[in-house]
Amino acid sequence: MTATSPATRNEIGVCCSRVTAGALDIAAAERLAHVFKALSDPTRVRLLSLISAAPTGEACICDLTAPVALSQPTVSHHMKLLTDAGLVTREQRGKWAYYRIVDAALSAVSNTLDPSKAPFREPTDP
Amino acid sequence: MTATSPATRNEIGVCCSRVTAGALDIAAAERLAHVFKALSDPTRVRLLSLISAAPTGEACICDLTAPVALSQPTVSHHMKLLTDAGLVTREQRGKWAYYRIVDAALSAVSNTLDPSKAPFREPTDP
Repeated sequence: MTATSPATRNEIGVCCSRVTAGALDIAAAERLAHVFKALSDPTRVRLLSLISAAPTGEACICDLTAPVALSQPTVSHHMKLLTDAGLVTREQRGKWAYYRIVDAALSAVSNTLDPSKAPFREPTDP
Repeated sequence: MTATSPATRNEIGVCCSRVTAGALDIAAAERLAHVFKALSDPTRVRLLSLISAAPTGEACICDLTAPVALSQPTVSHHMKLLTDAGLVTREQRGKWAYYRIVDAALSAVSNTLDPSKAPFREPTDP
């Protein structure tokens, strides 16, 4: 049984405007800020790193509560924000939810900030 | 569960621990979250992109207010948060403050999220 996140790869693709490639319009800036907001909490950064560090590439919610010393409902709330931002996918298997990093999403966000991948600091015509 | 990745800082103070390189400790996660928080507002994302798009690589505060349609004190506040996070530098010249992107900081943040630059999700048999 699979219950995947409503956040799709298309949604992620939309957010890939480059911070370093020219002046962003409001809509693009809002989409990017939404993703950064999901990353703006230390617990969520740690949860993301824990999932990323899992040998199988995914982590059960049951294994995420102890490392961050928080209750399962609180961890689930944090995971929902990461899922809604498209940074992880969620799959329900029986009693537990399993989370997996969306590589493409992290790469997209990484690219938005990478000065070396943009025509950085070149004159742009509006 | 996993090895803890060391927290390191580059010369401009932006933490470059990898979200994708292993479970982060609390201090490293807090430093990263602080930077992401600076990026979690659409206006600040736009300001960063405006400075990045400036032909000379820097922007006067006097040229940043109109594009985001905000007062100078409000823009100054946003710029202070970006400066405090190490993402831009500020230089006062006479009446005006001039801001410049810190390439190394953006690169560091970009790298923290880049799955391709980390021992990311290498399958291992349990």
